[in-house]
Amino acid sequence: MTTNNSRQGEAVENLTKIVNSFYDQMDAGDIPAMQLPLRSKKNIEFDSRHDVWKYGNLRTDRTAKTINGAMMMLRTVYTVEFIDEMIRNGKSSTLREMYYISEGWGHGKFHTQDESNLLAEDLEIVSKCMREDFKLRPEEDGARVMGDLTLTEMTKKGDKKKINCLDDVGESGYGIPYNVESNKIDFKSCGAKFVIAIETGGMFDRLVENGFCEKYNALLVHLKGQPARSTRRFIKRISEELKLPITVFTDGDPWSFRIYASVAYGAIKTAHISDYLATPTAQFIGITASDILNYDLPTDKLSDQDIGALNAELSDPRFKDEFWISEIQAMLDMKKKSEQQALAKYGLDYVTDTYLPEKLTNMGIRL
Amino acid sequence: MTTNNSRQGEAVENLTKIVNSFYDQMDAGDIPAMQLPLRSKKNIEFDSRHDVWKYGNLRTDRTAKTINGAMMMLRTVYTVEFIDEMIRNGKSSTLREMYYISEGWGHGKFHTQDESNLLAEDLEIVSKCMREDFKLRPEEDGARVMGDLTLTEMTKKGDKKKINCLDDVGESGYGIPYNVESNKIDFKSCGAKFVIAIETGGMFDRLVENGFCEKYNALLVHLKGQPARSTRRFIKRISEELKLPITVFTDGDPWSFRIYASVAYGAIKTAHISDYLATPTAQFIGITASDILNYDLPTDKLSDQDIGALNAELSDPRFKDEFWISEIQAMLDMKKKSEQQALAKYGLDYVTDTYLPEKLTNMGIRL
Repeated sequence: MTTNNSRQGEAVENLTKIVNSFYDQMDAGDIPAMQLPLRSKKNIEFDSRHDVWKYGNLRTDRTAKTINGAMMMLRTVYTVEFIDEMIRNGKSSTLREMYYISEGWGHGKFHTQDESNLLAEDLEIVSKCMREDFKLRPEEDGARVMGDLTLTEMTKKGDKKKINCLDDVGESGYGIPYNVESNKIDFKSCGAKFVIAIETGGMFDRLVENGFCEKYNALLVHLKGQPARSTRRFIKRISEELKLPITVFTDGDPWSFRIYASVAYGAIKTAHISDYLATPTAQFIGITASDILNYDLPTDKLSDQDIGALNAELSDPRFKDEFWISEIQAMLDMKKKSEQQALAKYGLDYVTDTYLPEKLTNMGIRL
Repeated sequence: MTTNNSRQGEAVENLTKIVNSFYDQMDAGDIPAMQLPLRSKKNIEFDSRHDVWKYGNLRTDRTAKTINGAMMMLRTVYTVEFIDEMIRNGKSSTLREMYYISEGWGHGKFHTQDESNLLAEDLEIVSKCMREDFKLRPEEDGARVMGDLTLTEMTKKGDKKKINCLDDVGESGYGIPYNVESNKIDFKSCGAKFVIAIETGGMFDRLVENGFCEKYNALLVHLKGQPARSTRRFIKRISEELKLPITVFTDGDPWSFRIYASVAYGAIKTAHISDYLATPTAQFIGITASDILNYDLPTDKLSDQDIGALNAELSDPRFKDEFWISEIQAMLDMKKKSEQQALAKYGLDYVTDTYLPEKLTNMGIRL
């Protein structure tokens, strides 16, 4: 495995190559340009080597022929310089801070944070490195973990702190940091037999309170809605290195299906690093249209946005299998959605005594 | 200090009294009614004993004369029964779960979660106990803490786990649980000299990365936007029991001023427990209109909602002092707001090397 320094060294090297290519093109009398994959659903292809969805071959050109394109290249050069400086000084920065730092970049100033976020992702694609190696952090908190997993986390001082995610943490669990690569986190031992990644904090707390970790040797990961990259990478590493089965427990609505898809297949926004982030073996144990009927769950009416999102999923290559097509179609037909906490209709223990044991057994997970 | 069991015993006792009063009124041939304080800005009064803002004497009656009122009483009875059952079984529930549990209550079913949340608060007011004693939890995560504070947290098994919030935690810090009363958490020792409560996760991480805890003996608390009750109670206990000065570092906009007000003076929604939650000595070190000028910070234009919120604050009794009136007026005049991360305009160290030392020194905190 690459070490901290060599990962960052590679990032600087590859980023510098991008900037050098601008200069080389200008030296040759050409208007500098940069090629990027088209980043939309149209250009998502199945990568059978890694079993995940990645960008296909559709490309878009960014050139300095237009003022906007030239500005974007200026921003690229400034950003690369900023990243280089952070790595040299052992600092990191949130994406928001980088946006504000650009105040001092004259014409290279970003107009919106979307612009700077996208550029960070573009640089990942072109350099084949990860944002975490650029020392750029997102704003959101990492999610929480609870269960019998012992890991070491590298401290700022360079010590390795050993933490058991059941015994050494408070009730709120172990907080996943933004960098979860092996230079930061190492898995030491694991008594848990499988992972349940959970959409809502309320349900995470329910499983903790009901002693699900101990009773079934489960490792619980709180997804916090659409999961952060660090959470997805953490799950991927557990799946690969500890060979634990991964299950995803969400609400029953189109947005939750997307949460599952981003864990299992890769998200469209981060399709260039799906092989780092996605866990293709992850199984869905969230609320389905069938569950709404079988368990007679309290529901809400689908909104127009919900219906639009379900229809979009029907044309999303990631959802093109029998299970998803039939469940999405059934939800469109019944015009209803439901939440994971709706299982409380049958009392606070129903989810841990009945629903999850039934679903997990159906998925072939031995309890 | 009251113990766990006696707090919960008191809750059951006081809630049962409420239900008994319904029966007594019916026995006497009266239509049952329940009196509640009016819960709006109009009815907020300064409580000089605790130095916080609490509900005044304006009252509203809830009676079974109307169908809606009768339904509300039915819900009250069911809710009290549910709380009693949880306490007897050593369980707790999210507010969302209680909403779904009510599916089985026939005519007592809640129509929306707002309705069940409000009832939980009503019961706090009438019983003079706290929602945490009813074993009702919010959905949101507790915030994070980083700094030299050693505490013990009671585990589910009844052991006291000792945690130092600097040395025994990962990069993401110690997660505050939903119950932070002394039956759950005890402060053991503290090397930190003052508290900075911080609005955004990005700024919290910035101070952690820049070593602010170690360099200035600061205890950092992440507010996560509008802070949860457990976060405010945690800060209050640190202020009272450890006698540390509390400072609040937020963005410079009307919503952030409200965050400060809820920490320092008490929130309107929870004014019945301001003396538990509010820390009247908390000082504001967030971005002000003066800072926008003095530090020449990047700004955004005030939206119509921002202007409305600033004007509402001018008529809010909690903001009726010279400092706030002049800063709010100045912001309205310049029509601009700014974020705490905007300080990154001057580089990643500016906030810890320049801004915070200047502000803290101005507040009389010795660094």
